[in-house]
Amino acid sequence: MRQVAVVGAGMTRFGKHMDRTMKDLAREAIENAMQAAGVEKDAIEAAAVGNAVAGLITGQECIRGQVVLREIGIGGIPVINTENACASSSTAFHLAWLYVASGMYDMVLALGMEKLFHADKKRTFQAIGSAIDVEQSESFARKMSGEQSAGAGNSRSVFMDFYANLARQHMDRYGTSREQFARIAAKNHTNGSLNPHAQYQTRRSVEDVLSAPLIAAPLTRMMCSPIGDGAAAVLITTAEKARQLTTRPVFVKASTLGSSKEHDQDTPGIVPSVAHKAYEQAGVGPNDLHVVEVHDATAPAELLIYEELNLCQPGEGGELIDDGTTQIGGRCPVNPSGGLLAKGHPVGATGVAQICEIFWQLRGEAAQRQVSGAKVGLTENGGGVLGGENAAASIHIFTV
Amino acid sequence: MRQVAVVGAGMTRFGKHMDRTMKDLAREAIENAMQAAGVEKDAIEAAAVGNAVAGLITGQECIRGQVVLREIGIGGIPVINTENACASSSTAFHLAWLYVASGMYDMVLALGMEKLFHADKKRTFQAIGSAIDVEQSESFARKMSGEQSAGAGNSRSVFMDFYANLARQHMDRYGTSREQFARIAAKNHTNGSLNPHAQYQTRRSVEDVLSAPLIAAPLTRMMCSPIGDGAAAVLITTAEKARQLTTRPVFVKASTLGSSKEHDQDTPGIVPSVAHKAYEQAGVGPNDLHVVEVHDATAPAELLIYEELNLCQPGEGGELIDDGTTQIGGRCPVNPSGGLLAKGHPVGATGVAQICEIFWQLRGEAAQRQVSGAKVGLTENGGGVLGGENAAASIHIFTV
Repeated sequence: MRQVAVVGAGMTRFGKHMDRTMKDLAREAIENAMQAAGVEKDAIEAAAVGNAVAGLITGQECIRGQVVLREIGIGGIPVINTENACASSSTAFHLAWLYVASGMYDMVLALGMEKLFHADKKRTFQAIGSAIDVEQSESFARKMSGEQSAGAGNSRSVFMDFYANLARQHMDRYGTSREQFARIAAKNHTNGSLNPHAQYQTRRSVEDVLSAPLIAAPLTRMMCSPIGDGAAAVLITTAEKARQLTTRPVFVKASTLGSSKEHDQDTPGIVPSVAHKAYEQAGVGPNDLHVVEVHDATAPAELLIYEELNLCQPGEGGELIDDGTTQIGGRCPVNPSGGLLAKGHPVGATGVAQICEIFWQLRGEAAQRQVSGAKVGLTENGGGVLGGENAAASIHIFTV
Repeated sequence: MRQVAVVGAGMTRFGKHMDRTMKDLAREAIENAMQAAGVEKDAIEAAAVGNAVAGLITGQECIRGQVVLREIGIGGIPVINTENACASSSTAFHLAWLYVASGMYDMVLALGMEKLFHADKKRTFQAIGSAIDVEQSESFARKMSGEQSAGAGNSRSVFMDFYANLARQHMDRYGTSREQFARIAAKNHTNGSLNPHAQYQTRRSVEDVLSAPLIAAPLTRMMCSPIGDGAAAVLITTAEKARQLTTRPVFVKASTLGSSKEHDQDTPGIVPSVAHKAYEQAGVGPNDLHVVEVHDATAPAELLIYEELNLCQPGEGGELIDDGTTQIGGRCPVNPSGGLLAKGHPVGATGVAQICEIFWQLRGEAAQRQVSGAKVGLTENGGGVLGGENAAASIHIFTV
């Protein structure tokens, strides 16, 4: 396999863009990525496009990528439309990487895009709810909805019930506290206040987070990622071409994708196994990471992922947030972008947006939220729920 | 890139399967493919799953592959969900091929699956109609719907108007006749009568085809592919492993994917350019082909594809059907399976089903419809419509 590098990244601000189409959002992300890379559209040889729910939101169930790319004059190239729920665009990036790494194409676009807001809110909830086995959605809701969970009756709360359940298990098992989850949310909101692409750009304290409305105990609203629209794009090429284009290519050291299987307490879940593969592929370990973007669909999710990525031992996630390790300025900052909690979570755009952030961080272009001296970064993106864990997970490792 | 081979194929009969779920259809196809290959499910290292419209038909917009594969005990592996309208599962096959060819995985499943029938017929038409730019669907319908076209007001007829328009242009330009289109439909229905997997298994004469109800002149109903449900699966591996598994591996000599671009009369369309790439990759030309499966969404489409694949010169498609070249027993049989017209067209299953047919033909396993001595085969699968031609096309070439 050839060595692959990212040479340009661009994204829209995430948020509520009722007046903008997906084409419009994608155009902004792609044009920014091309400009950053110094690459014209005619140089793009193939595209991999991640989107999760356009079929249900805009009705564009098919040829989602072609419709958007044609609008900005990109055509005549292979377009792979791919979906893996919230991990759709990291899957697209993985396929774009595969095109370059395999030797098939030299310059490939990876695009993630999503419109979640719809005039009819039910439509949005139905779309998000399609990331579980829809035939079993009722039994899933019953399984996940414990006595302590407030709110039910829509798909979004089913997911929040799921995460609330995981959080309570962690609290019971390891003595993790609500305050520790709140500290993660406060960190990410504070990071988001430094990110012009973030949906929420307001600093929040632990007290702010704890006093926000309860969604499903122990989750308050500020511990949950919001609904959003947005797009993110990166251009990738061979190491050789990258060096011709820029003095600061960001190399892809690992590109992994996995899906869940039936598992019990004794078998590792999907994130640990995909992370293991990624560390092995990259030849780096968790202690080598300088900056990390993870899938904090909720604040407790980020804490669990600390452990699943082996940034700490099982049960020690709470300490990692308490001792400042994962804040900007700490040993291993996590979600300097604000993460899903503050930057936002337009499902199919999230994976590539994480990669944009690591690209900017490793090039020293992250301005106010820059992690100083960052040379090795990781992204973790999860999608859907099946059999009690993420249905898909994709992990990438980058270096400069 | 490593050499890749298909070692097993399986599919359901295509048709109206109101009482069967997509899981159930996929299970049959996958189990048949595994049995044919002599491969257990634990040996499958990754899967690429093509499906076009489940989001709109079953509500399963996300993690479509995982939901189906988990049901049959396949999990813990990378699952790529991909969509390219009617070319969804040839795109999946292309990605599965890329996984093996690149050296990333050794045994990969490519699955195509679709449910099109729904108790609410409007839902089916809406789903099929999502394979054009939905924002422009009205202007597209106006553009395609000439005076001669009967029926309008639903998405399916928009597609048929599109094909009728292409057919009339060909008639005007080259003197191609309705009878020649009818001859193609009669050939495919007759081939379908020999195929136990075909949705329609009744021999049809040219007269039968011409006297069927008119859909949009010159298309009669028997010149149009039907709505259907079904699934198809193949297992692919390295040439080396294939030789361990079977004495008759079917090698993938070319795997190409392309998308449309803005074009005028002077630039070649998508199929010729993707075909050119495929012939080059495989090192074979159109005269080397012994058997071909093409995307005969309508009978005129097949005739046009003869020319686009360079099986004959522009304008000579009519002669190719008249002189028997493309019937079983002719020099280059096209659609011995019955094609989309008779075998059926469950959108996301079609691409892999074409590959199943070529696999069986090249191994001499096609029973009554066997093309004798077939050693080199090609599949052409197109998807969606954008800017006056297929939005996506994928062509594969195989040899034994």
